[in-house]
Amino acid sequence: MRDTFLVGVGMTPFGKFPETDLGSLGRGAVLEALADAGLGPRDIEVLACGSARSGTLQSRESGVGQLIGWEAGIEGVPVYNEKAFCASGAMAFNIATMAVSSGTHDVALAIGVEKMSQRNGTGRPLTSDGMAFQSEAGYTPPAYYAIAARRHMEVYGTTREQIAAVAVKNRTAAADNPRAQYRDPYTLDDVLSSRPVVWPLNLLDCCPTGDGAAAAIIVSEAGAERLGIEPKIKIEVSSAGTGYYRTQDRDMTSFGLDRVTSQRAYEKAGIGPDDLDVAEVHDSFTIGEIIHYEDLGFCEPGSGGKLVESGETALGGRLPVNTGGGLLNRGHPLGATGVAQIVELADQLLGRAGARQVLGAKTALAHISGGFHEDDFATSCITILTKYGR
Amino acid sequence: MRDTFLVGVGMTPFGKFPETDLGSLGRGAVLEALADAGLGPRDIEVLACGSARSGTLQSRESGVGQLIGWEAGIEGVPVYNEKAFCASGAMAFNIATMAVSSGTHDVALAIGVEKMSQRNGTGRPLTSDGMAFQSEAGYTPPAYYAIAARRHMEVYGTTREQIAAVAVKNRTAAADNPRAQYRDPYTLDDVLSSRPVVWPLNLLDCCPTGDGAAAAIIVSEAGAERLGIEPKIKIEVSSAGTGYYRTQDRDMTSFGLDRVTSQRAYEKAGIGPDDLDVAEVHDSFTIGEIIHYEDLGFCEPGSGGKLVESGETALGGRLPVNTGGGLLNRGHPLGATGVAQIVELADQLLGRAGARQVLGAKTALAHISGGFHEDDFATSCITILTKYGR
Repeated sequence: MRDTFLVGVGMTPFGKFPETDLGSLGRGAVLEALADAGLGPRDIEVLACGSARSGTLQSRESGVGQLIGWEAGIEGVPVYNEKAFCASGAMAFNIATMAVSSGTHDVALAIGVEKMSQRNGTGRPLTSDGMAFQSEAGYTPPAYYAIAARRHMEVYGTTREQIAAVAVKNRTAAADNPRAQYRDPYTLDDVLSSRPVVWPLNLLDCCPTGDGAAAAIIVSEAGAERLGIEPKIKIEVSSAGTGYYRTQDRDMTSFGLDRVTSQRAYEKAGIGPDDLDVAEVHDSFTIGEIIHYEDLGFCEPGSGGKLVESGETALGGRLPVNTGGGLLNRGHPLGATGVAQIVELADQLLGRAGARQVLGAKTALAHISGGFHEDDFATSCITILTKYGR
Repeated sequence: MRDTFLVGVGMTPFGKFPETDLGSLGRGAVLEALADAGLGPRDIEVLACGSARSGTLQSRESGVGQLIGWEAGIEGVPVYNEKAFCASGAMAFNIATMAVSSGTHDVALAIGVEKMSQRNGTGRPLTSDGMAFQSEAGYTPPAYYAIAARRHMEVYGTTREQIAAVAVKNRTAAADNPRAQYRDPYTLDDVLSSRPVVWPLNLLDCCPTGDGAAAAIIVSEAGAERLGIEPKIKIEVSSAGTGYYRTQDRDMTSFGLDRVTSQRAYEKAGIGPDDLDVAEVHDSFTIGEIIHYEDLGFCEPGSGGKLVESGETALGGRLPVNTGGGLLNRGHPLGATGVAQIVELADQLLGRAGARQVLGAKTALAHISGGFHEDDFATSCITILTKYGR
């Protein structure tokens, strides 16, 4: 397997852009990534696009990767259109990395893109589209996470305030991210007094609905040499696992799949949680970030609430998490998020994250989960990046 | 890049099974492929699933690869869900091959699956779902291919009888394929007198609507050794290109993208069209097979009609094409077809194709196109397989 390097990233602001189509969103992110790498569209040899919702045989959106490639001036290359719920973008990044590590191609583009603000055709916004009978029964994602929160509180004594602290921490980070969907700072009291969604989770414990795109360019050593690029970030591992989050079989306070996938990634990279300087962690709901801390080995099982409360995962702490605002505040256009996490980590490793810079960041991890828990299967993706070269 | 080997294939019969869901269809094909390889579900390390229509966020069908894996007893492995119109299955095969050639995994499963007989939710059959304004204007796939047929007749003197001869040849082959959707033999007169669709194409010039699934298992040398398997088929190349079949810019008698993609594949494999013993060629419409002969280098531009008329591409000829009945008669459940082509070629290379066996077949090619021509982009996939070992 060949080494792979990240040499350019780009993303649109996240927000509600009902008038902008997938092609335009993607094009914006791709052109920024190309400019960042100092490359042109004809340098791209393969393209992988992740998008969770655009797969219906609806006109051009069926080939969303082709559409974005066409809009950005990329022609004739193999295009993969990947779907893995919230992990669609991370899986596209994984395919693009594999296309380079395999020796098949030297220069690959990964795109994540999504429009959540408008249902295709219907004009209605997306909420929990397609979760037919579970939604009818009230078992929507917030309900699922609310049960997990209740259980975590019960088993480990995690407090409502600790859970709300995730939202405050991530909003504080978002305030310094010009591309975040929501940036106005708020307090613990604001979270605790926001509109209830499913007890104990309130509105500010839940990620918003939004649109956006992100892109990343991956090269081999040979590709970098040929293009005259000096890689500054190495992709140590891009690893995925699929498992069965079967509610009835398991402890609601942990996602076993994330434990397996992250352990495998740490072993592959020869890098452990203690080596990390900065991380992006799936925080679609506040309690999720706390549970993921534990499953990713950032702390012992049950102590995630204390970890966020301690400030160690805030900017300036030992291991800042979600420095771009997370899904909660940067926003969560499903397929775009996995690549947006890579954009944030690249900015951190390159020392260009501005007011939210983690000083001296050299090793970074991104984690994302995709899938409907009540459907017995889901995807967990881990990416580990390190600063490379001089 | 590591060598890759095909060690097991399976498929369901193709036909109309409105009561059978995607999970059950896929499971049937996967269990057959596992049995063929002598492996169990826990031997699979990665899974790629191609399906053109199942991507809406509709309950479990959104993660169709996960669903089929679950039904077949495969757990915890990375799952890719790939979409590329008619080439979805071939692209899944391509991803699975790349997962092995890259050194990421040693044992990969490719699945193609589709349900065309029933629209999700609506109960209506699929015709040309989603081709919104083109369909309203009458520019459906049969109309597109009819224009190409007219142009081919005009420019090269191709006759209506030569075009119909593709259907007769492929139906004759299907008669010996128990898994083909339509098997009753017919004559040239039957094709010429079947119900007109778009002049000059009649009903028997067009592929049918159907459901089905196919699966293939790919291993590395190390994987084969560990599992105690002796590989008998080598995957020389699995290659994809995406291009822009832009009607207004080009000669309707050729698909430039297929020429580029096949040329690239021939070079990679060090195998030319003259070396082939058997081939699977995209024949969604009769004229398509004739045009593809020319673009794949089976004959000179313009002489595809004469080639089929000569019998050289029929069973017993120099280069038998579509020995399983082709899309026209085996059927064309979009995402399933790319993998079903691999199943047919494997049976030919292993000498187990029964009455439709090509004697001494050692080198085989599969070609499939995906995409709506009027949407300016499409995918072309080429796979070349050779008999391996003793």
